[in-house]
Amino acid sequence: MALLRSYVGGRWHTAADEGVPLHDAVTGEEVARVSSKGVDMAAALEHGRRAGGPALRELTFHQRAALLKALASHLREHREELYALSARTGATLFDSKFDIDGGIGVLFSYASKGRRELPNDTVYVEGAVEPLGKGGTFVGQHIATPLRGVAVQINAFNFPVWGPLEKFAPAFLAGVPSLVKPASQTAYLTARLVELIVESGLLPEGSLQFVAGSAGDLLDHVTGQDLVSFTGSASTAQKLRAHPVIVRNAVRFNAEADSLNCSVLGPDAKPGTAEFDLFVKQLVTEMTVKAGQKCTAIRRAFVPAELLDDVAAAASERLAKVTVGNPSSEGVRMGALASLEQREEVRRSLKALLSAGSVVFGDPEHVEVVDADAERGAFLSPVLLKGDPERAEPHEVEAFGPVSTLMPYTSTEQVIDYAARGDGSLAGSIVTGDADFARDVVLGVAPWHGRLLVLDADDAKESTGHGSPLPQLVHGGPGRAGGGEEMGGIRGVLHHLQRTAVQASPSVLSRVTGRWVAGAPRAEGVHPFRKSLAELKIGDSVVAGPRTVTQEDVDHFAEFTGDTFYAHTDPEAAAANPLFGGIVAHGYLVVSFAAGLFVSPEPGPVLANYGLENLRFLTPVKPGDELTVTLTCKQITPRVDQDYGEVRWDADVTNGNGESVAKYDVLTLVAKS
Amino acid sequence: MALLRSYVGGRWHTAADEGVPLHDAVTGEEVARVSSKGVDMAAALEHGRRAGGPALRELTFHQRAALLKALASHLREHREELYALSARTGATLFDSKFDIDGGIGVLFSYASKGRRELPNDTVYVEGAVEPLGKGGTFVGQHIATPLRGVAVQINAFNFPVWGPLEKFAPAFLAGVPSLVKPASQTAYLTARLVELIVESGLLPEGSLQFVAGSAGDLLDHVTGQDLVSFTGSASTAQKLRAHPVIVRNAVRFNAEADSLNCSVLGPDAKPGTAEFDLFVKQLVTEMTVKAGQKCTAIRRAFVPAELLDDVAAAASERLAKVTVGNPSSEGVRMGALASLEQREEVRRSLKALLSAGSVVFGDPEHVEVVDADAERGAFLSPVLLKGDPERAEPHEVEAFGPVSTLMPYTSTEQVIDYAARGDGSLAGSIVTGDADFARDVVLGVAPWHGRLLVLDADDAKESTGHGSPLPQLVHGGPGRAGGGEEMGGIRGVLHHLQRTAVQASPSVLSRVTGRWVAGAPRAEGVHPFRKSLAELKIGDSVVAGPRTVTQEDVDHFAEFTGDTFYAHTDPEAAAANPLFGGIVAHGYLVVSFAAGLFVSPEPGPVLANYGLENLRFLTPVKPGDELTVTLTCKQITPRVDQDYGEVRWDADVTNGNGESVAKYDVLTLVAKS
Repeated sequence: MALLRSYVGGRWHTAADEGVPLHDAVTGEEVARVSSKGVDMAAALEHGRRAGGPALRELTFHQRAALLKALASHLREHREELYALSARTGATLFDSKFDIDGGIGVLFSYASKGRRELPNDTVYVEGAVEPLGKGGTFVGQHIATPLRGVAVQINAFNFPVWGPLEKFAPAFLAGVPSLVKPASQTAYLTARLVELIVESGLLPEGSLQFVAGSAGDLLDHVTGQDLVSFTGSASTAQKLRAHPVIVRNAVRFNAEADSLNCSVLGPDAKPGTAEFDLFVKQLVTEMTVKAGQKCTAIRRAFVPAELLDDVAAAASERLAKVTVGNPSSEGVRMGALASLEQREEVRRSLKALLSAGSVVFGDPEHVEVVDADAERGAFLSPVLLKGDPERAEPHEVEAFGPVSTLMPYTSTEQVIDYAARGDGSLAGSIVTGDADFARDVVLGVAPWHGRLLVLDADDAKESTGHGSPLPQLVHGGPGRAGGGEEMGGIRGVLHHLQRTAVQASPSVLSRVTGRWVAGAPRAEGVHPFRKSLAELKIGDSVVAGPRTVTQEDVDHFAEFTGDTFYAHTDPEAAAANPLFGGIVAHGYLVVSFAAGLFVSPEPGPVLANYGLENLRFLTPVKPGDELTVTLTCKQITPRVDQDYGEVRWDADVTNGNGESVAKYDVLTLVAKS
Repeated sequence: MALLRSYVGGRWHTAADEGVPLHDAVTGEEVARVSSKGVDMAAALEHGRRAGGPALRELTFHQRAALLKALASHLREHREELYALSARTGATLFDSKFDIDGGIGVLFSYASKGRRELPNDTVYVEGAVEPLGKGGTFVGQHIATPLRGVAVQINAFNFPVWGPLEKFAPAFLAGVPSLVKPASQTAYLTARLVELIVESGLLPEGSLQFVAGSAGDLLDHVTGQDLVSFTGSASTAQKLRAHPVIVRNAVRFNAEADSLNCSVLGPDAKPGTAEFDLFVKQLVTEMTVKAGQKCTAIRRAFVPAELLDDVAAAASERLAKVTVGNPSSEGVRMGALASLEQREEVRRSLKALLSAGSVVFGDPEHVEVVDADAERGAFLSPVLLKGDPERAEPHEVEAFGPVSTLMPYTSTEQVIDYAARGDGSLAGSIVTGDADFARDVVLGVAPWHGRLLVLDADDAKESTGHGSPLPQLVHGGPGRAGGGEEMGGIRGVLHHLQRTAVQASPSVLSRVTGRWVAGAPRAEGVHPFRKSLAELKIGDSVVAGPRTVTQEDVDHFAEFTGDTFYAHTDPEAAAANPLFGGIVAHGYLVVSFAAGLFVSPEPGPVLANYGLENLRFLTPVKPGDELTVTLTCKQITPRVDQDYGEVRWDADVTNGNGESVAKYDVLTLVAKS
C-alpha cells in the first residue's frame, strides 16, 4: 500500500502530491501515505446528487435493505484481510472484531429493520391521518422523502470500519448517497473497506464516495439538501457546527463527540456481590478495549465512598493482569494507541487530571510491553486515578486512552448531580442489584444521556456492555457529547429524510401516499379476496351484510366461548354499567361476525390473516342491531424475497344507524399471482 | 400603557431606563415604551431551572394538558381586549383573530393531544422494546424525559400572540419552562397576553417568564439543557445559530425563517374551473392577510405559461376590491404594515424584485386609504409582480409585505425545479383537480418543504389555506426556512425531551418505565379483574386454561359466524395452503376462547373492553391443540377527569408446547375504586 486513493466521481483518484505518511501504531513503520490533493470536492458532491441520489431513489426501502444485506455478507467474507490491517492501528483481534464485525453487524441490522419496519415503497408515511375539518374532506398526514443531497460523513480515527458503516447504513436505506471522509491516521483501513465495497459492484454508482486525506473545501459546497455527520473531538465539532456555509444553509449537522461517560456502582453492590465484580470487570474492560480510545468509554467511575478502597484494590488487581504489547502476539490484552501524537495528548490530559487526583494504578510514563518497542510504538499503561468529584477537572478533562477516574459519592442525589456535571454524555451505566436505585439514577441522569445501561446479575450474561452502541438504539448525547443522534433503528433513516406535512382531500392524499385513506373513493366489484397482489389496488373494497345480532347469538357466544362477562349475560347488572346501560354483544362476537360477512371462502390468493391492529369498539352493539362491514384495501407491501406480500385492510363495522361500532386494520398475506 | 414590564424571577420588573417608543402602525402615535435594562438574564434562566422546571416535572403530562386547557379558556374570555390592542399593530379584526384565536387554538389542541396521545405519567416511552439478546434477559427501550433547562423563545413581530403560544404549549406540555422574548415592535400585545396569563394564577411559578425589550446577554447563559427557538429573519437566525455559547454547548436550536413559499396552479385549472378561482382567491388572501406579513405567505406563484395573463387579470380584479386603511374601520380588508421601517424594507425588496420583473397590480409608492393618513400610518398597496423564473431574484428576495410574483412554467419537471430554487420553504400549495399532477409535484418538491397543501374543489370548503400552520402538523422547512420544526403534534413536545436508550433486564426496565415488559416478573393471586385502578399493579396477572380446541369447535364457529374460509372448513384445500398445511382454527376463535378463559364475569371494577392492539397470530392452531392464556397488567393510565382509567393488558396465548399462538394487547376501562 502506497498512496491511498480517493473514490470520487465514479473513479479512483490518486492525489497530485506525495501525501503525508501514516505510521504503524505498533512499530512506527510507514503503512501508507495520504493526500486528497486534486480531488474536486464540489464535483464529488455533485456526482452524489446527480448519479447516486437518483439511482438510490429508484429503489424501494426493501430493495435498498436487500443490497445492505448482500453488502454485509460480502464484507463478512473478507474480514480476515481487514483484521490484518486493523492490527497495524494498534488493535488486538478482539478490538478489530469490535470495529469490523461491529460495522458489518450494523449493515445486517439495518437490512433487517428496513424490511420489517419500512414500507416496500419510496415514500415513508409517518403517523396517523389527522382530520383537519369536521366534514372529513380535508385531512393531513406527514410523509418523509429523501433529501436530494449527499450525506457527508466525517469520521474519527478509532473506528475506521464501524464508523463509516454505521453512518452509511441509515443514509443508504434512506436513499441518500454518502461521501465518507475518515480521519487520516487510520484511513488505510477505511480505504481497503471502500475498495472491497466498490469491487463488490453491489451498490449503485454514486451512492458511496470516499475521500482519503484532508476534506479541503468540501464544506464550502454543502447545501440545505446535504447533511454533515461528524464524529470526533468536541473542539472540531464546534468548528464544523459554526462553519459559515453550514450555518447559512441550515445544513443538518450531527455531531458525536467524546464525552466524560460515567459508571455508577450501587450502594448494595458490596464486595462479594455479583454486581461488585461486574462493575470492576466492566471498568477494566472499558479502560483497555481499543486501549480506551472509545468515545463511550468510562471516564468517571462513581462508587459509594465506603467502597472506594475495595473497588480500587479489585480493579488494580485486574489491571495488573492486562498484558500490553504487540496486538498480534499471543496473550496480549491491550495494544497500542493509534499514534505517538495520540499518546502525547493523553499524557497531557493526565497531567491536568492529576491536579485533582492521584494515581491508583499504572505509570503514565512507563509500561512493560510484549513483542514491541514501548517507545517506537504508541504504548501506554492503563492508568486508574482517584479523583475529587468536587473539582472541575474529572468532569471536564478527557484523556482519550486507557484512563479512568474513581470518585466517591455518599447519596443518590449526589451521584446524580455528579453525573450531570459531565454536561452531557453518550453513555452511562449503573451497576446495581437494586431496581429502585437503578430507577432513581436512570430517571435522574437521563436528560444528560443518550444511552444508559443497567447492569446486574440478571442481564450480565447477555449484556453488550457499557461501551457498545447498538444499531437498534440511539447513539449520541446532549451538550458536550455533541447533541446528536445516530442509528436508533429507523430514527437514523428518518434523519436523512425531509418530513413534510401534506394537507389534501382524502382522495388526493391516498394518491400521494399510495395508501388508502378513510374518505377516499372505494371501488366495489370483484371481491378483493379474489385478486392477486398484482391485480389488487388500494381502495378495492367489499361491503357485506347486514346481519342482525340477536339475543340468542349473544347468549350462545357467551356459552360457547366461556366469556360470560356480566355485560353480556346479566341484564340487571349490565343495566347498571355506566357505559352500556344494558346487555351488549361481545366485541369478539362483532369482529367474528364481521369476518363471516367479508370473507370469500374459496381458495384464492388470500393465504392467511396474520394479525389485526388498532381495533376500537366505538359504539355498543345491542341485541337487534344490524351489522354491516366495509373492508377496503389500504396498503399493499409485496415482499422482495417471497411470492406473496402483506395487505392491510381497513375494516369498518357499522350498525343500522350508520354509526361505526368497530374499526380496525386486518392484516393478510396475499399471493403475488 | 407606558413602559412595558418584564416578568422574570417571579415578579414584574420595570426597566431602569425610559425605554424606546413603540408606535401605532396606523396613526404613528406612541403606544408604549420598551426596555429590558436591569433584567438579570442569568438569574431569569436560573429561576426557570430552579423553580419552573421542578414544579412542572411534578405534574404528569395529563395534568399539564389540563392546565393548558384551563389557560386557553381563560384567554378566550379576554380576547376582546387583545383584539383592541392588536388593531394598533395594523391588524384588521380578521387578522387579529388569526393571531389571537389561532394562538388559543394551539393551546386547546395541545391540551387535547396531551390527554389522548401522552401517558398520564412523567416519563414518555417511545417505540417498542428491542430484544438485545436471544435469552430475553437483556432488552432496550427509548424513554424521553424533560430537559432540565429553559426553552428560550425569541419571536417575530408579526404574530405577537400566536408566536409565543405555539412555542409555549409544547414546551409546557413537555415539562420545560419557557422564557418568552417577543420582537419589540409589537411587544405591547404580548405583554398584555403575559399579564393575563400571570393574573390567571393557573401556571406554576417559573414555568413562563417574559422579557420585554432586548435579549441582552441572555444567550451567553444558555447550557446544553436549555433550548433556543427563534422565529424571524434568516439573517438573525444565522447569527443566533452561530452564537459561540449555542455552538459550544450544542444547545438545541430551532429556527423558523421567512421563506419564498410557492403556490403552483395545475395545467388543468383553466379559467372557469373551480381550481382557477381557488388559486386566484387564495393568492389574494395570502397577499393581504396581515398585510402579507406572514412567513408562510405566497411569494412565488407559478402558473402554466398559457394561463399567466388570465391569472394576472383575475388577480388584479380581486386586488382592486381590497380596501386598504384603518383596520378598525368598516369595510377595510387590509390594514397597515407593522411599522414605517417595515414599509421601507418592503420597498427596498420591491426594487430588487423589479429588476427581474414588472408590476401587474399596485403602486409601491402610493395607496388610497380609508380613515387614516397613508404616510403617517405604515400603509402599502398590495403589489403583484410578473417575474422571470430564470432570474435569481424572485427565488431569493423576500418582500415581507403584500407582495407576490407571478411566474410562468411549461412542464411539471420545470415547475418542480423552480419551486426547489427557493432553497427551502415553510409551506407550498398546489391548486389542481388532477390528482396525478398533485402527486408528482408533492413528491417532487417535498424535500424542500415543511408543509404542502393540495387545494381543489373537494377540500376547498374545509381547507385552512396555504398560510395557516396547524398545531397537528409540523411548521418549519429546510434550508432557507431555517431547518427547524415546530408543533407537529407530539413531535413538538418530544423536541423538548431528551431521548435516552435504556438497556436493562426486563424486570429493571419495567421498574424504570412503569410499564410491564415481557420477561419481567408477574404476580398471580387475586384475579386482576377484581382489582380497582387503585389496587392494580403492573405485572398483576392471571393464567387461565388449558382449553382444547376441537374440530367441532372449528366447524361450529365457521357455521355460527359464517367465516367458512377454506383453511377452516376444507381439509384438502387447507392442506394445500403453503402456510398451514391443514385445517386451522380461526384466529377470531382463538381470541374469543382466550377471552372466555381470562375473563372474570361478575360485576367489578373492569367496565369494558374498548379495544385491542398489535394482534399477531404466530403459530397456527390445529384441532386438538390446548390453549392457555396469560393476561398481565402492562400499563395503567388513570384519567384526570373521570372516575376510571385505561388499563392495557398483555395477552399471550400459548399451545400445549408452550409456543405463543397469538399475542396482543387488550385495552380496558377500569374504575378507580
